[in-house]
Amino acid sequence: MSPSKVCLVIGAGDATGGAVARRFAREGYTACVSRRTQEKLEPLLAQIRQAGGTAHGFGSDARREDEVVALVEHIERDIGPIEVMVFNIGANSPNSILTETAQRYTKIWEMCCLAGFLTGREVAKRMVGRVTPGDPGRQGTTHKGTIIFTGASASLRGSANFAGFAGGKMALRSLAQSMARELGPMGIHVAHTIIDGAIDTHFIRSQFPERYALKDQGGIMDPEHIADAYWMLHQQPRDAWTHELDLRPYMEKF
Amino acid sequence: MSPSKVCLVIGAGDATGGAVARRFAREGYTACVSRRTQEKLEPLLAQIRQAGGTAHGFGSDARREDEVVALVEHIERDIGPIEVMVFNIGANSPNSILTETAQRYTKIWEMCCLAGFLTGREVAKRMVGRVTPGDPGRQGTTHKGTIIFTGASASLRGSANFAGFAGGKMALRSLAQSMARELGPMGIHVAHTIIDGAIDTHFIRSQFPERYALKDQGGIMDPEHIADAYWMLHQQPRDAWTHELDLRPYMEKF
Amino acid sequence: MSPSKVCLVIGAGDATGGAVARRFAREGYTACVSRRTQEKLEPLLAQIRQAGGTAHGFGSDARREDEVVALVEHIERDIGPIEVMVFNIGANSPNSILTETAQRYTKIWEMCCLAGFLTGREVAKRMVGRVTPGDPGRQGTTHKGTIIFTGASASLRGSANFAGFAGGKMALRSLAQSMARELGPMGIHVAHTIIDGAIDTHFIRSQFPERYALKDQGGIMDPEHIADAYWMLHQQPRDAWTHELDLRPYMEKF
Amino acid sequence: MSPSKVCLVIGAGDATGGAVARRFAREGYTACVSRRTQEKLEPLLAQIRQAGGTAHGFGSDARREDEVVALVEHIERDIGPIEVMVFNIGANSPNSILTETAQRYTKIWEMCCLAGFLTGREVAKRMVGRVTPGDPGRQGTTHKGTIIFTGASASLRGSANFAGFAGGKMALRSLAQSMARELGPMGIHVAHTIIDGAIDTHFIRSQFPERYALKDQGGIMDPEHIADAYWMLHQQPRDAWTHELDLRPYMEKF
Repeated sequence: MSPSKVCLVIGAGDATGGAVARRFAREGYTACVSRRTQEKLEPLLAQIRQAGGTAHGFGSDARREDEVVALVEHIERDIGPIEVMVFNIGANSPNSILTETAQRYTKIWEMCCLAGFLTGREVAKRMVGRVTPGDPGRQGTTHKGTIIFTGASASLRGSANFAGFAGGKMALRSLAQSMARELGPMGIHVAHTIIDGAIDTHFIRSQFPERYALKDQGGIMDPEHIADAYWMLHQQPRDAWTHELDLRPYMEKF
Repeated sequence: MSPSKVCLVIGAGDATGGAVARRFAREGYTACVSRRTQEKLEPLLAQIRQAGGTAHGFGSDARREDEVVALVEHIERDIGPIEVMVFNIGANSPNSILTETAQRYTKIWEMCCLAGFLTGREVAKRMVGRVTPGDPGRQGTTHKGTIIFTGASASLRGSANFAGFAGGKMALRSLAQSMARELGPMGIHVAHTIIDGAIDTHFIRSQFPERYALKDQGGIMDPEHIADAYWMLHQQPRDAWTHELDLRPYMEKF
Repeated sequence: MSPSKVCLVIGAGDATGGAVARRFAREGYTACVSRRTQEKLEPLLAQIRQAGGTAHGFGSDARREDEVVALVEHIERDIGPIEVMVFNIGANSPNSILTETAQRYTKIWEMCCLAGFLTGREVAKRMVGRVTPGDPGRQGTTHKGTIIFTGASASLRGSANFAGFAGGKMALRSLAQSMARELGPMGIHVAHTIIDGAIDTHFIRSQFPERYALKDQGGIMDPEHIADAYWMLHQQPRDAWTHELDLRPYMEKF
Repeated sequence: MSPSKVCLVIGAGDATGGAVARRFAREGYTACVSRRTQEKLEPLLAQIRQAGGTAHGFGSDARREDEVVALVEHIERDIGPIEVMVFNIGANSPNSILTETAQRYTKIWEMCCLAGFLTGREVAKRMVGRVTPGDPGRQGTTHKGTIIFTGASASLRGSANFAGFAGGKMALRSLAQSMARELGPMGIHVAHTIIDGAIDTHFIRSQFPERYALKDQGGIMDPEHIADAYWMLHQQPRDAWTHELDLRPYMEKF
């Protein structure tokens, strides 16, 4: 029996990561979800399994090279080939440049960017060497896998008091560009999203109630809709790939 | 009997415009297709009708205000409400700045940009005033329609010897941005695409045979896949709209 | 006696164009200044002459090819070689896309962009063929002249209600890019400026008094300082040219 | 006797940093130059002193917070107020994403970006609190100092095999943007340069001889010309500041 293809979600702690995992599980992928604290993944794993899907949860710190290497190796050896990787870790934390600490500035970059580099590299190394099953008849390079990095409006500009977050996100965007240009011709679809709006999460509900009140009017992003867009990216045929996809509510200023 | 919703394709002369019209017709839209010479639309109309769809062809010069006003008025009055408009006219014609003529420079802008302004404005005027049928239960602004402008890599930069084409395409991109920012909150989804690759057309086949030889390897864009992306844009829920979508073959340099 | 080198300013009607003309005249250039109504140039010509400079005024519509061709030919034949051309015409006029007229949309583009194309092309044609006097000892391509196009924040994005102005300015920016890439290696320095702030003009004084009140605090741009920047661009050695220069008050949001 | 104003150059190991230090010393600034190995600064210090200038050299690792804090504190206490800081550290080192190591990826970011954050923050903290001597008559915020970050073409895009360098440089650019937007209204001029060409250095001479052969034709950037541009940025009046300045040889492709 051939092993199931895997969708690995790094940073499955929030609404978006969870929705992406459920979406790919519904399509038959084995969802491998990771965040620092394994226990917190239980509700998500239960949701996926109750819906008939297959899911594995991993407590892993994506900023640590040894943990990332071990995680990817374990999945590839014991579960199945990673066909999709979604990197979804962020760390939005505004601060004046005059009071920002080196520790926090570095930590934000490690979460936003270094973790993306480590996971992206490890997964790409596995993808480049294989041919997607079921794709033998096509000529040329086959689509060997999809890597999606989640960005934000801070990926495009450094606003006042956002040096840390914008620095991490712009560096992640450049990583996505560089990987797309190197790995695209090898058959790996590397995409970067710009999520430019408030997402329907507990954080927005509790911290920005006025914003959250726009939910019924479509002013808050539904994580399921973001997950639909990620699934769409993975489904694109190799002659029409999107590298950067922006998503925002119709009423969002931009 | 309620009139069928309409998808209007301006510049249905090439492969992309035709594929978009067929795609939306397959989904139940009445395809209204336009180009300067009506006779040349016959094969496309026949394709759509043979597949069970409904289609109307119009010989119309989108650079002429009176013709655009008349076309939109006729469709809205006699055929149905325009729910989707795809603007697809281009005029790629490289030339040195030292020998470019004012006549050609102006004509390229009229085709790439002025025609987009005229059609976009006329269609937007109709869309803003109405509520999409079947969407009565939702609160707030409903999705009243979609307007898609087709761009190219020249939409992003002015390369040497492409002053005319880049000028028209960058102006069209700014039109799309300005319309999205004004009309988005009113419920009109305005999107701009960056088609960054050779499309499977007679022009590429005959003029760039070496390029065309990459077709079997996925190096040439299939118009049907571009049409799929346009359909996807129209289907996006209002809390997760994409404004700019790039599409290119996996092997394309960018 | 060798003819004096010329600085041609197209759109010398406002504060910036006048300041640029005075600046280059002070450096020994013959200032040739142009706007549609010749009489209105008299105060500027008088200023330059009183300061000991040489100046010629021309009533000319830069949107008309025949007038541009005649103007450049006349200057080159009867006055001296154009070593610097500054294009400075704008037409900021916000309007909803729903009510913008084709006539105005086209006129704004003709002023912002077509006039820049016509003047840039005519001047470039003359520049490419000659060697700058006094530069015989250098190897390779000499610096044959400088062409500067004045842009604005609308050159970078299409804001709501600015479809016309942004369209013209983004098209002008793409013209500057394309010309720089083609003509730079031939020794013509093509630059584009982003003037991102209110300039000290009668218009700002009368229409935006609250803004104008910031003048003593440095919140309003002094046209003489913009002119200094243009002079600096022309003085740059050929191994360190700037293509795009943004200028804004220290307190400006961007 | 009032202490001399200081120009601090971080990364004075290469041609550009040295030229900037010499340029500001010539204008009467005390040049404080820093690189990891103090001994290597001796030739530069000797040059400045022989020309009649004042200079101090510091062996300091700009990636280490304690060293940066101590360096800035020492200069401010014992030498004079830092009026200009130029951050000039880079680490261009191409590599495939498939073989890039975490150690090197992190080190490049620390050199390109973290060091810029540390130095920029420490210097900005000192600048915000003071009024520039000699500027008492002006109303409003005075120009309290200038901070310049040196960028490259990698600051604008992530090319294939440049994930590390582009990541560090794009993050540095976002730092410069964020600092400019926060600190500009407080009177600190934060600028970012795009050095888009080969500089006349031993590295280019020995590693890229074909490129270096273009020197006599102006195809190689003279560090003195880059230094002139940095001096110009510092001299800009507060109503006309440039945030981003690109510099490249006339013959450079871009």
